[in-house]
Amino acid sequence: MRLDVVTIFPEYLDPLNVSLVGKARARGQLDVRVHDLREWTYDRHNTVDDTPYGGGPGMVMKTGPWGDALDDVLADGYENGSHGPALVVPTPSGRPFTQELAVELSERPWLVFTPARYEGIDRRVIDEYATRMPVYEVSIGDYVLAGGEAAVLVITEAVARLLPGVLGNAESHRDDSFAPGAMANLLEGPVYTKPPEWRGQGIPDVLLSGHHGKIARWRRDEALRRTTRNRPDLVERCDPSAFDKKDREMLSILGWRPGPDGRFGRDPDAVEE
Amino acid sequence: MRLDVVTIFPEYLDPLNVSLVGKARARGQLDVRVHDLREWTYDRHNTVDDTPYGGGPGMVMKTGPWGDALDDVLADGYENGSHGPALVVPTPSGRPFTQELAVELSERPWLVFTPARYEGIDRRVIDEYATRMPVYEVSIGDYVLAGGEAAVLVITEAVARLLPGVLGNAESHRDDSFAPGAMANLLEGPVYTKPPEWRGQGIPDVLLSGHHGKIARWRRDEALRRTTRNRPDLVERCDPSAFDKKDREMLSILGWRPGPDGRFGRDPDAVEE
Repeated sequence: MRLDVVTIFPEYLDPLNVSLVGKARARGQLDVRVHDLREWTYDRHNTVDDTPYGGGPGMVMKTGPWGDALDDVLADGYENGSHGPALVVPTPSGRPFTQELAVELSERPWLVFTPARYEGIDRRVIDEYATRMPVYEVSIGDYVLAGGEAAVLVITEAVARLLPGVLGNAESHRDDSFAPGAMANLLEGPVYTKPPEWRGQGIPDVLLSGHHGKIARWRRDEALRRTTRNRPDLVERCDPSAFDKKDREMLSILGWRPGPDGRFGRDPDAVEE
Repeated sequence: MRLDVVTIFPEYLDPLNVSLVGKARARGQLDVRVHDLREWTYDRHNTVDDTPYGGGPGMVMKTGPWGDALDDVLADGYENGSHGPALVVPTPSGRPFTQELAVELSERPWLVFTPARYEGIDRRVIDEYATRMPVYEVSIGDYVLAGGEAAVLVITEAVARLLPGVLGNAESHRDDSFAPGAMANLLEGPVYTKPPEWRGQGIPDVLLSGHHGKIARWRRDEALRRTTRNRPDLVERCDPSAFDKKDREMLSILGWRPGPDGRFGRDPDAVEE
């Protein structure tokens, strides 16, 4: 997979040399190229922004440098045998970046990221490239960053770990929160490792029982406990057929009841545990 | 504000020297210290992880190094006059990191971040420090990262830009997506700057009209258009009293109707624009 990033803060992308993404690059699984947008400015001040049409605070990133930069980056990729580029535009106005979208992006051969600063990029740049390739305008969450670079690190890491051969043995997709499968829509519960006692705290007895069924049940109950507390929205969205009898008992203990459509909601009369 | 980060990948945090956070540090508005967790290991292999109790894939980060590291980091902070620490634990099992939470964290004097790798940190570490200080277990979004370091960059940037005096003139809180105020719960629409024509594309005439009321209305309509498309959940959650007559006309054009409780939902019979 080829990744290009065009930015006015290339050094912000230095973490792409580290850890999982760094190792994937060293192994040749990822070809990452970071470009300084200011190389495509031609005035003395390397201007990349100007005031917004229609007035208002903040600055807007200009069409010229972005168009020239993207043209050159795309031409270079095609010359080097890449194909099927998609533009990834981090913006708080985008659709949510989710694990499903990470999977979709991980199946593409070439991603070009355009992290913006200020009030964003002149809309015509996005509209122009949208005529030639898929454009993903994505938001990594409901908070405001100073620019899109941190979002590029997040998206790149989420995508890279899904590429074949990138994850080592110490890591695993299987029980990931948000992974499709048994724990779908449930958060993972607490984890423990040696020693069995630390600063007066032991570990739950069941984890030493060697009883796989009981351990699985305990983990599931803890997942339900954590999910109802931290992400009631996930429980509400859950297909109720995903809950077995023991799940329903635990949900009842936690103060959740099935509604008329079968989906679970918090009982307004329940006392919080 | 003091920020400590304990991590096995200190170089991943290098972007904290760049841009907004880097400038805030240079100005003395932020005191950021990054610590290598492996400095608190005492075996030849600098081991920080072990297999999970109860079995299963992946590795769990051990109590010992984390406890020793956090004790030393906290002692150092107190000795240097810091007070009121809070632990920020990035984890996919946490509650969602939102702009409201960014505001809350920006009001604290001292944040200690514990980005984990593998399957996470032995639960007893969190439970131990929770007896002494607030602990924020937060998730930056519904996707899986290789570790918490990228989340620390995201949270730090969202928090730092809210500190008094950190944002420059080129930037602004006022119209931020997710900011409290007039555009609450609406995404920002497209922005444009000079030149008026680029690669055959002009800009919307209204932006050149000089008519402030019409420009504000156009921006609001575009915000409604983008929000209904990319974030129907935000529109559904919106207090309907936030919509004026023109908003309601636009929502109707976009195929949204008020339900029995007054809140708007997409008309299932409407044709997508």
